[in-house]
Amino acid sequence: MNLPSHGANPSHLYLASGIRKPKEIIDFSVNTNPLGPPDWLQEKWPSFLHTIENYPDPTGQKAVDAIARRFNISAEQLLLGNGAAEIIHFIARYAAGKKAVIVTPAFSEYEDACQSYNCLIEHVAADPEHWQLPVEELVEKAQEAAVLFICTPNNPTGQCFKEAEMVSFLEQTRNSNVLVVVDEAFYDFAGETSLLRYINVFPHLIVMHSMTKMYAVAGLRIGYAAASAKVIAALKLYRPHWNVNSIALQVAEMAAEDFSYAMETRKKVDQERNRMKKELVNIGFAVLPSTVNFYLFKDPALDNQKKLLHFLLNCGIVVRHTENFRGLDGKWLRSAVKKETENNQLLEALKKWKALC
Amino acid sequence: MNLPSHGANPSHLYLASGIRKPKEIIDFSVNTNPLGPPDWLQEKWPSFLHTIENYPDPTGQKAVDAIARRFNISAEQLLLGNGAAEIIHFIARYAAGKKAVIVTPAFSEYEDACQSYNCLIEHVAADPEHWQLPVEELVEKAQEAAVLFICTPNNPTGQCFKEAEMVSFLEQTRNSNVLVVVDEAFYDFAGETSLLRYINVFPHLIVMHSMTKMYAVAGLRIGYAAASAKVIAALKLYRPHWNVNSIALQVAEMAAEDFSYAMETRKKVDQERNRMKKELVNIGFAVLPSTVNFYLFKDPALDNQKKLLHFLLNCGIVVRHTENFRGLDGKWLRSAVKKETENNQLLEALKKWKALC
Repeated sequence: MNLPSHGANPSHLYLASGIRKPKEIIDFSVNTNPLGPPDWLQEKWPSFLHTIENYPDPTGQKAVDAIARRFNISAEQLLLGNGAAEIIHFIARYAAGKKAVIVTPAFSEYEDACQSYNCLIEHVAADPEHWQLPVEELVEKAQEAAVLFICTPNNPTGQCFKEAEMVSFLEQTRNSNVLVVVDEAFYDFAGETSLLRYINVFPHLIVMHSMTKMYAVAGLRIGYAAASAKVIAALKLYRPHWNVNSIALQVAEMAAEDFSYAMETRKKVDQERNRMKKELVNIGFAVLPSTVNFYLFKDPALDNQKKLLHFLLNCGIVVRHTENFRGLDGKWLRSAVKKETENNQLLEALKKWKALC
Repeated sequence: MNLPSHGANPSHLYLASGIRKPKEIIDFSVNTNPLGPPDWLQEKWPSFLHTIENYPDPTGQKAVDAIARRFNISAEQLLLGNGAAEIIHFIARYAAGKKAVIVTPAFSEYEDACQSYNCLIEHVAADPEHWQLPVEELVEKAQEAAVLFICTPNNPTGQCFKEAEMVSFLEQTRNSNVLVVVDEAFYDFAGETSLLRYINVFPHLIVMHSMTKMYAVAGLRIGYAAASAKVIAALKLYRPHWNVNSIALQVAEMAAEDFSYAMETRKKVDQERNRMKKELVNIGFAVLPSTVNFYLFKDPALDNQKKLLHFLLNCGIVVRHTENFRGLDGKWLRSAVKKETENNQLLEALKKWKALC
């Protein structure tokens, strides 16, 4: 069985698993905001139609300015991408043919992009059950590396590395030639704090954010990177003209000014995540701590969770397998925190599974 | 004066020219369909809103299938891009560090992308006043090249190379290692005929189309390349995940099935282009032949047309300078064919110019 390497492809997953896709499914493999997009998106939607006739501003200036204002940095310290995925490819190109270090488990796009640019890839494992940044090992590996990827809050584990560990690592590598990429795609599910405020302190730090998770617009493709003006200028050379579409630019501008939606979301997501954890533990599942809108769980009776994955697929419930997450290797399943009624359907299915075992 | 290197940036052009932007401007520098998007886009627009919540299908299968059906080729022979600009960058990457030949004048993105991948760039000039493919010179240059770009219908001249010349060139290079890129971004303004039907004959041919010109959705970003399955598979390796957004995918699928809009557009554009040519010649301008929705014109009394460009900018009329089109070097201006009333405003301004001279 060769499972798809990303979530968000339920049809591909059913096909690869040889299971007939039920008419109704609930997709817990997608990590976007369970509340959906903010109301202003629906209100503004009709007005976006006429803007698609024209080419997008290739500099995306209004969106860039709004994001720069939000984080109190300059426009020259920002780069917009056609999703964070495009920016990851620019970074991999920057490190082409050189050593790239990835802290695992991690979002698979770092490895895919680095492979595509013939980087020499090395992995450093963080233990999902005792989550901490392996600072000492990383500092050593970083010496010879062109780039080093850290995903925090981590996808797929949902856990954050401690800020003190991150800063200590950045301090200890500031004189080496490594570019430290901190992918904070889910930072605003965990709180207001971002390592972005350190980009003026550490010239070798680049922080990536996605706007498609919190604002539930994954179909639009919009992400950005913040770093020193020098690093951003280097990456900008790789950007095709008009790389961010007009609608994404407008949504990015408005999202950058909307603080309250993230706050409201965090409140509801935290509540549901905590409830689910309690319920799941009660019925005999293991659940890892999480700070965001997804979490890892498993049936401790199984080593590999494939059987449970298939059982859930048959119930029309799609969770994310972890077969291609190095360090997880199928031993956990990842589930998004969705709305209460949907989360309850996952619970019901898992209760059925337990009753069968 | 360092003018912007692309059209479609009126504000940047006014800024660079030091001319105050009037409140109302008409932009003749953008080459999209003057009729705007087809009616079905407006009808479907509300239904697109809910689709942006989800990640786009990374394979874009439905859009790919619709385009493949239209041209009677297989899905494996197609690659979708975040605009044709992204595909041009994939092709430049394919030729990284090697020789790239560009037939000029040409769309500036080939050169920008090839420069960004450290290609050794060589140019072969076609004479805008006696338009034909310099087959002999090109065959010779192609011997050592990894890639060779030909834009037909040509942007910026609006002229097509004869199919017999193109086929002769392809015949004579079929045994060399060059990839021949035929950018037909505007093919459907010239007629139904595309060199795409030769991709099964010439394994070294790649044909690019844009969907944003004819369907007036430049803000959405959607283009594609067709070639042998082998060439497409090689380029696919460079593609970031989810590179085409959900709305672009849906519009591409519908546009691929809509033949009548292109037909209706051609009829109206041809009529307006012919009328404008006649009127412009009558009042003393030189106009080059064109097959598409834009054309080159000049005041024969001027060598460089900068003064006329500035006069028009002051009138609120933005045409495209040709300073950065090698082989034109500012000696012509490019204008889009727009609606009758808009074209008349260009005519009136040009009559005023003539009256002043």
